[in-house]
Amino acid sequence: MFKIRLLVTALALVSSISVASAWEALPTVAPAPADNPTTEEKVELGKMLYHDPRLSSTGTVSCSSCHNTMLGGEDNRPNSMGVNGQTGGRSAPTVWNSAFNAVQFWDGRAASLEAQAAGPVTNPIEMGMKSWDDVVARLKTIEGYKVAFEQVFGKDAISKDNATKAIAAYERTLITPNSPYDKYVSGDKSALTVQQVRGMNLAQELGCTACHSGPAFNGPGMFQQFPVHSNAFYAAKYHFKDDKGLAEVTKKPADEHMWKVPTWRNIALTAPYFHNGAAKTLDEAVTIMAKMQLDKELTKEQLADIVAFLNSLTGQFPKQTMPVLPATPGTTFN
Amino acid sequence: MFKIRLLVTALALVSSISVASAWEALPTVAPAPADNPTTEEKVELGKMLYHDPRLSSTGTVSCSSCHNTMLGGEDNRPNSMGVNGQTGGRSAPTVWNSAFNAVQFWDGRAASLEAQAAGPVTNPIEMGMKSWDDVVARLKTIEGYKVAFEQVFGKDAISKDNATKAIAAYERTLITPNSPYDKYVSGDKSALTVQQVRGMNLAQELGCTACHSGPAFNGPGMFQQFPVHSNAFYAAKYHFKDDKGLAEVTKKPADEHMWKVPTWRNIALTAPYFHNGAAKTLDEAVTIMAKMQLDKELTKEQLADIVAFLNSLTGQFPKQTMPVLPATPGTTFN
Repeated sequence: MFKIRLLVTALALVSSISVASAWEALPTVAPAPADNPTTEEKVELGKMLYHDPRLSSTGTVSCSSCHNTMLGGEDNRPNSMGVNGQTGGRSAPTVWNSAFNAVQFWDGRAASLEAQAAGPVTNPIEMGMKSWDDVVARLKTIEGYKVAFEQVFGKDAISKDNATKAIAAYERTLITPNSPYDKYVSGDKSALTVQQVRGMNLAQELGCTACHSGPAFNGPGMFQQFPVHSNAFYAAKYHFKDDKGLAEVTKKPADEHMWKVPTWRNIALTAPYFHNGAAKTLDEAVTIMAKMQLDKELTKEQLADIVAFLNSLTGQFPKQTMPVLPATPGTTFN
Repeated sequence: MFKIRLLVTALALVSSISVASAWEALPTVAPAPADNPTTEEKVELGKMLYHDPRLSSTGTVSCSSCHNTMLGGEDNRPNSMGVNGQTGGRSAPTVWNSAFNAVQFWDGRAASLEAQAAGPVTNPIEMGMKSWDDVVARLKTIEGYKVAFEQVFGKDAISKDNATKAIAAYERTLITPNSPYDKYVSGDKSALTVQQVRGMNLAQELGCTACHSGPAFNGPGMFQQFPVHSNAFYAAKYHFKDDKGLAEVTKKPADEHMWKVPTWRNIALTAPYFHNGAAKTLDEAVTIMAKMQLDKELTKEQLADIVAFLNSLTGQFPKQTMPVLPATPGTTFN
């Protein structure tokens, strides 16, 4: 009896491990940190802040300008355009499903959505505000924000900490479930084509899903090296190594060319690809990844199969209402 | 008997004239031209196009960037920022209730919303597209637009004409009824404060509503001269005459400094004021208008009353859903 019970337990364990390491559907709810529970009013406030261009020095750039919630969560540009037409060296990552990233930014320098949200606002080439004190001072002139912050956080609550908490809470709702892939792994075997299933299995066999794993295909762990292999032709064409990734922040040689593993979710919508937006098409990106990370040349058929599979990861975008941003009578930006 | 009937008719005529020239609430539906009836699907397509930054050369500027539907229908800037951080000389007029303008643009050079919508897209400092042929070519690469245009206009229907028709149809739905003023003139005498009613009557007595007339306070007729009177101090400070208005287009001396009468609707939300955005506050704008148009100095109390009245013209903004913009796999903007 004891032996049988042990065996049953062992089998259950094996089965649960095998499920955990297998293909997973995207959760429909993202976990929130203990100090920033997701509430409806906080999400609504975060949505307002996220779409408000008055969080930029010129009043022209909101979070959504580069991480566009009406599109695939970014701007389809190699690098984004911030205040006064300035551009940087990296491509905007999608905001959709970013709640499932272990770390944020391409170089993973932010440990949470809250920490990430604080960055672009005071980046001189992104939203260009001089300081968060200036942001807070501006928000305090907007009566509607006073009311909204008070409802969510209590009296006199307009602060950097609360603004970034609200934005992060909103971002945790930006989830795109029910892609053909999700339907397939949830039991609807007609949701993927034969080619897409072939591509899915091939991605695993080749080793793509060693890094692009889990329900959001964005990794176990936090960082991976890119590129792994050297290739003079690609180096000359794409300049991937011009940017040192995490080492740009930490200055540690061990962090050189270490990057967050970007999600595959909605990847068909987020061209161009890579941290510097150097690859214009998904075909190009997959070819490069096979060569630079796995040292493999894909056949034409293999490439088509994997790209077909990646196209099955486009999810359902939730219907959102537009925020009605609170007005500032007599405010101008110049 | 005949005399009595005539008298009744005459009285009815007088009464109808007096109603027509009296205070009017904002209509909740805007009239559409015969060749562009407003339909639900067309409005939905127009909303997509209106919010799509891919209608600009850089993929960063949509109609809504400068005429923000989440704010007071513009950008609270003296002059808007187009592609690559460029700015022009005029302040973006609000899109809300623009369906009730007799003519469009500050200088009234467009006779319809349809004609207006074609302009900014190919203006080099606004949305910067080289030509509408380029816009149409780009839209044709976006599968979702092919489908949407076909549903509204029939097969192979992506064209400048149809795109601007759809945008105009959407704009005709951007109406903000039920302001305190509207409630007041519809019979709710508690909707305005005593001061606001004083300001309303004063605006009429002083002559403001001779030009700012009708339910949207934007006219009879199409153009008015601004400024009418000369004032060396204001000329030096605000440079209103640097821009010749309609004459910049027509090159006719008679059109110099002729402008569309801008609506008073939601004026409290649309600082800064005037064609060049030179006045930062409503107090300043009203003071200037009294002096430059009517040659009158307002007392402090008169000014406060009129501004209080203008604040009663902020309407109710309809709840809108965000459009989910159709994706272009593999498209980049640079």
